[in-house]
Amino acid sequence: MKILVINTGSSSIKFELFEMNNKSCLSKGTIERLGDAASSISYKINKTGEPIKNKLEIPIADHTEGLKKIVEILTDPENGVIKDTSEVDAVGHRVVHGGETYSGARLITDDVMAKVKELIPLAPLHNPANIQGIEVAEQFFPEAAQVAVFDTAFHQTMPAKSYRYPLPNELYEKEKIRAYGFHGSSHSYVSKQMLEALEKPVAETAIITIHLGNGCSMAAVKGGKCIDTSMGLSPLGGLMMGTRTGDIDPSIPFFLASKMGLDLQEIDKILNKQSGLKGITGSNDMRDVMELRANGDENAILAIDMYVQRIKKFIGAYAAEMGALDSIVFTAGIGENSDELRSLICDNMSFLGIELDESKNATRSDGNRPVHTENSKVGVWVIPTNEELEIAIQSEKVIKQEVAQDA
Amino acid sequence: MKILVINTGSSSIKFELFEMNNKSCLSKGTIERLGDAASSISYKINKTGEPIKNKLEIPIADHTEGLKKIVEILTDPENGVIKDTSEVDAVGHRVVHGGETYSGARLITDDVMAKVKELIPLAPLHNPANIQGIEVAEQFFPEAAQVAVFDTAFHQTMPAKSYRYPLPNELYEKEKIRAYGFHGSSHSYVSKQMLEALEKPVAETAIITIHLGNGCSMAAVKGGKCIDTSMGLSPLGGLMMGTRTGDIDPSIPFFLASKMGLDLQEIDKILNKQSGLKGITGSNDMRDVMELRANGDENAILAIDMYVQRIKKFIGAYAAEMGALDSIVFTAGIGENSDELRSLICDNMSFLGIELDESKNATRSDGNRPVHTENSKVGVWVIPTNEELEIAIQSEKVIKQEVAQDA
Repeated sequence: MKILVINTGSSSIKFELFEMNNKSCLSKGTIERLGDAASSISYKINKTGEPIKNKLEIPIADHTEGLKKIVEILTDPENGVIKDTSEVDAVGHRVVHGGETYSGARLITDDVMAKVKELIPLAPLHNPANIQGIEVAEQFFPEAAQVAVFDTAFHQTMPAKSYRYPLPNELYEKEKIRAYGFHGSSHSYVSKQMLEALEKPVAETAIITIHLGNGCSMAAVKGGKCIDTSMGLSPLGGLMMGTRTGDIDPSIPFFLASKMGLDLQEIDKILNKQSGLKGITGSNDMRDVMELRANGDENAILAIDMYVQRIKKFIGAYAAEMGALDSIVFTAGIGENSDELRSLICDNMSFLGIELDESKNATRSDGNRPVHTENSKVGVWVIPTNEELEIAIQSEKVIKQEVAQDA
Repeated sequence: MKILVINTGSSSIKFELFEMNNKSCLSKGTIERLGDAASSISYKINKTGEPIKNKLEIPIADHTEGLKKIVEILTDPENGVIKDTSEVDAVGHRVVHGGETYSGARLITDDVMAKVKELIPLAPLHNPANIQGIEVAEQFFPEAAQVAVFDTAFHQTMPAKSYRYPLPNELYEKEKIRAYGFHGSSHSYVSKQMLEALEKPVAETAIITIHLGNGCSMAAVKGGKCIDTSMGLSPLGGLMMGTRTGDIDPSIPFFLASKMGLDLQEIDKILNKQSGLKGITGSNDMRDVMELRANGDENAILAIDMYVQRIKKFIGAYAAEMGALDSIVFTAGIGENSDELRSLICDNMSFLGIELDESKNATRSDGNRPVHTENSKVGVWVIPTNEELEIAIQSEKVIKQEVAQDA
């Protein structure tokens, strides 16, 4: 079975085609700056022998043209990996917001599309782009099943004490203001990988997954189920990120409005685009910030102190909440690649049973790996995330259920 | 030495007169609903034999009339505790916001008054009332030293990684947007009491103080110094409270504005006055909520689950941040009186070394007391707070320093 995974942003498309028999990637790529004169498509094709890597800088007007280009690459008579689009059994779409309706992936029907549209106010930037991606994929892959995999679904197991805010009840009941959480496919993927490595019954496990990329979030996963996560109604809350604040005193927007006369749109832009690492150091690229820090830049030193402290505090908070902790898992760009940050986060955490092995931690590798000392009571693992594969796996499961139901 | 402590709100005055030789309370009382036809003054006078308790329901127009009334009570020829106002050596004022300027109490000078006025934007409800209280006290106690004791001062030892927000630098540098923390006199008082009871050098201690009243806040106190606290720029952040949200996703104000068309003033009112316990249960009185909960009310069960979980998470967060934990201290109305809440908060916390002795916990007492089991690695204490006495002690210290400097 072949499954194409599509992740559509307002001006971008990421794709990856999987052969599900061995969960291998046949091809993957990214289109950036859709609609811009400087748009580009970079891709990789894994054929026998050397993989083909290519980057084309060509104008691509919109999502339709973008997906057409992807189809051309996949079906190219010389270098392509499929003969025609009918070879693709399903297209798995990342859909950011599934609200309270979806705790798992769904075959896309008119009802599902209507619901995803209904949820636009909760994800005004993401769901509209995801809808466009689905509509275009239905044109180009008319024979494939279209499946929606929601970024919020993994967190739907949270108990009310975790997802409710201490706000008037009607804001939850009528407006559905609650914590949803995001990066669900990533937390789901790495937590399953971690649980396989733990030698105890899933029901007795308590782990914390730490996704550190441009966006950052953490999840407390007890008995294999998410019971809390750091992002909330929107992807702005929780940890400090590249350009986002994470949790701050909720009176700050009011202060900015009343004292500085800023309007809500300006404040929203400050909190989402000009804060986090960027607000303190001027750069939202962790590599730049770490280099500045190594050169003694005081703002970079402060930014990393702040970034690390917030992660430490969530580790402690989730350990207290679960009443137990088997292991913590680092994943995503920063979590997988910055041994220095992992070292800072795990420093002086032996009170919680966390002891990092600095030598294991510094050893680079692409695989799942433990990086704690032999005596550490709590495991510390690096597990590379694979949201695309998780989306493909979830999509395959949905199709098989549908087939089973039809039979 | 006699010190009068005054805590002035916009429509209230609390007072307490101390004999500092033995730190005893000579008289204390509260004026409520100043300027209202239904204003009242209730007070207690501790003379030899039975204390006198009284409540007068009389119209009191403003702070001037209020303090005049207090002077009458204190100097009453028959029942008073002083002959005239010159017996009062100092008036210690609770001033809510001392900004970054004051890390300790200060003798009130023109410069200090100017600074407290300058800080009004950071505490628009509180500092103006505190200023009124000072001005009126200067009239009635012209011979006494006037001392300002700031609610923020105790938290001024926080490192930048705790007090800075991941916002653009200029919002800190120009607008002083940072975490200040509140309830400082309470955290200061109970942490000193706790440190006296710990049998180890202060420099090696790590404790958490948990102030649960109408407002709720926690502080991480390492080596005797506050290194983090749950309230931030304003008293809205941190824990769930009677009517306040505590920390919520900072995008929620934007959602309320854009989706529901509410203006900032309405949103501010929701977050500060209609949320917390009240938002979930309809009542902001913990006793009512606990009674509803005992009767199976689902909203009350949820509200307490949420309230307790947030405190547990801060305990874990601060333990991780300090890398150690000697004891946690419960204080203020709810913290001192609700053994049931203490029990819920400490439940399933043995991973952090916390084990409550349910029998000790259920025993009522007015004194400082440990309520943990013999085997508990972390101490659990109930320590009644005394913000007024702390203000008197700080005021006395300021006067003695001044005298020493003058000599």
